[in-house]
Amino acid sequence: MEDSRPLDALNKARNKRVMVELKNGRQYIGKLNAFDIHINVVLEDAEEHVEEYAEKEVDGKKIQVRTGNKVMNRKLGVVFIRGDTIIMISPA
Amino acid sequence: MEDSRPLDALNKARNKRVMVELKNGRQYIGKLNAFDIHINVVLEDAEEHVEEYAEKEVDGKKIQVRTGNKVMNRKLGVVFIRGDTIIMISPA
Amino acid sequence: MEDSRPLDALNKARNKRVMVELKNGRQYIGKLNAFDIHINVVLEDAEEHVEEYAEKEVDGKKIQVRTGNKVMNRKLGVVFIRGDTIIMISPA
Amino acid sequence: MEDSRPLDALNKARNKRVMVELKNGRQYIGKLNAFDIHINVVLEDAEEHVEEYAEKEVDGKKIQVRTGNKVMNRKLGVVFIRGDTIIMISPA
Amino acid sequence: MEDSRPLDALNKARNKRVMVELKNGRQYIGKLNAFDIHINVVLEDAEEHVEEYAEKEVDGKKIQVRTGNKVMNRKLGVVFIRGDTIIMISPA
Amino acid sequence: MEDSRPLDALNKARNKRVMVELKNGRQYIGKLNAFDIHINVVLEDAEEHVEEYAEKEVDGKKIQVRTGNKVMNRKLGVVFIRGDTIIMISPA
Amino acid sequence: MEDSRPLDALNKARNKRVMVELKNGRQYIGKLNAFDIHINVVLEDAEEHVEEYAEKEVDGKKIQVRTGNKVMNRKLGVVFIRGDTIIMISPA
Repeated sequence: MEDSRPLDALNKARNKRVMVELKNGRQYIGKLNAFDIHINVVLEDAEEHVEEYAEKEVDGKKIQVRTGNKVMNRKLGVVFIRGDTIIMISPA
Repeated sequence: MEDSRPLDALNKARNKRVMVELKNGRQYIGKLNAFDIHINVVLEDAEEHVEEYAEKEVDGKKIQVRTGNKVMNRKLGVVFIRGDTIIMISPA
Repeated sequence: MEDSRPLDALNKARNKRVMVELKNGRQYIGKLNAFDIHINVVLEDAEEHVEEYAEKEVDGKKIQVRTGNKVMNRKLGVVFIRGDTIIMISPA
Repeated sequence: MEDSRPLDALNKARNKRVMVELKNGRQYIGKLNAFDIHINVVLEDAEEHVEEYAEKEVDGKKIQVRTGNKVMNRKLGVVFIRGDTIIMISPA
Repeated sequence: MEDSRPLDALNKARNKRVMVELKNGRQYIGKLNAFDIHINVVLEDAEEHVEEYAEKEVDGKKIQVRTGNKVMNRKLGVVFIRGDTIIMISPA
Repeated sequence: MEDSRPLDALNKARNKRVMVELKNGRQYIGKLNAFDIHINVVLEDAEEHVEEYAEKEVDGKKIQVRTGNKVMNRKLGVVFIRGDTIIMISPA
Repeated sequence: MEDSRPLDALNKARNKRVMVELKNGRQYIGKLNAFDIHINVVLEDAEEHVEEYAEKEVDGKKIQVRTGNKVMNRKLGVVFIRGDTIIMISPA
């Protein structure tokens, strides 16, 4: 393990926009301001994106189905995200 | 990791109103009085907000659906929140 | 983090009545006798409160729905509650 | 935290009958023989109690509903219970 | 905590047949060969028992219902069981 | 605990074929190449086995039911399995 | 445990394409750039693959069923994956 470590990748992403995906399906997109070894993360200018639902008629019944897209839910400014709720982090 | 750390952001929010969102979908909004490395949090003048449900008629059946909004459920005064139930914290 | 810490708030609540809310939706209300850093808690003169259900007729079918209230389920005297099941603690 | 600690309450209950409630809804009732800081517990003369179900007719359909009571399921003698499955412990 | 500790009970059960019940409802019955502080366990001559289902006719529909019994599913010989999946251990 | 320890059993299984069962119901069968105290495991010549489903007609409706068997899903070669997803390990 | 350790297998896979399977059913396929003892992982040129669904008519009703295949969902470039969401890692 003399080579690069996972937190190096986060360090390179500092002050850049990243997408943070949570176990509950939500995404937070914002500028990576801080992180620690627990992967607690602070984003600035953050937006929350949630799964999009659309109404669909199946066999004459209207049901809510996931479109597979994410849509902006709210702007949050600064947000502290607890590490254990995070699945992955990637450049936005 | 010489730069700012996630708990710095919480420290800046001390004595200010924050929104704490839990894994069970609830939100607590109050003045951030204290926190620790486990992200255990104490809020003052706290309110609990829960997901709003509305009755909707779908195919002649009345069902309860989420409106996507949160509504005030109860005022709690001081509240201690265990860190491992928290998803995120943001200025209110 | 030179300021107050979350356990200070619990210490102030010692020997006072608190409400402890668990991840399974139950509440225990009693006098806070002891706690530790894991948020293991001991209550005295404790009562267990559970979610209230009421029968409701929807489209000619009787179903059980949550009223949103909690009702007293049983008196327990002394109760030891394991910290990792706790969501929050607040004055009763 | 100079005052009493949660494990003191368990220590007082040693060799007395306690009720141990698990995250899966089961209860074990027996004499508290041993415990440790993980809240691993050993009971003697233990009985397992489970939720009682009764058949109920709703709209002409027979369904199984919880009565809200617990009933004795089996006698177990000595039982070692892993701490992380425990919600609470109270005198039986 | 000068008295007996939970692992003492497991130590007494060494080389005797025990029943290990898991969070997923399965039971492993075998000779307790080894254990550690994480409650990782090794059984010899182990059998796996699972919940029994029976077909039942309810309102003219055949459904699978749990009988409440456990039935032998397979013989496993030596089995290593990870501690965090275990609910309880008791003499078989 | 002077006697044998759980990891001794894994050590004896090194370079032999084992079956690793996961919390999600999958099984990996392969030669045990390596393990550590977290029960992270590396298998060689590994196969993934999943629960078998069969179509069954119940009351004139075709439904998918579990047969109770596992079937080979894919060959994986070398596979690293994270310890906290493992329920048990047994000779294949 | 003088023999090879699980992280040796990851070290051999460094700079090679691997498939990382998560607890939520998703797969990430990319070049293994970094990992640590928590199995936090960084992939480069990563693609996200998700379970494929197809529409099927069962008893005159159209339902969504899993085909058992994975399909490419999106290209992500660099991705940091938190270790506790990972089930297994295997050469792609």
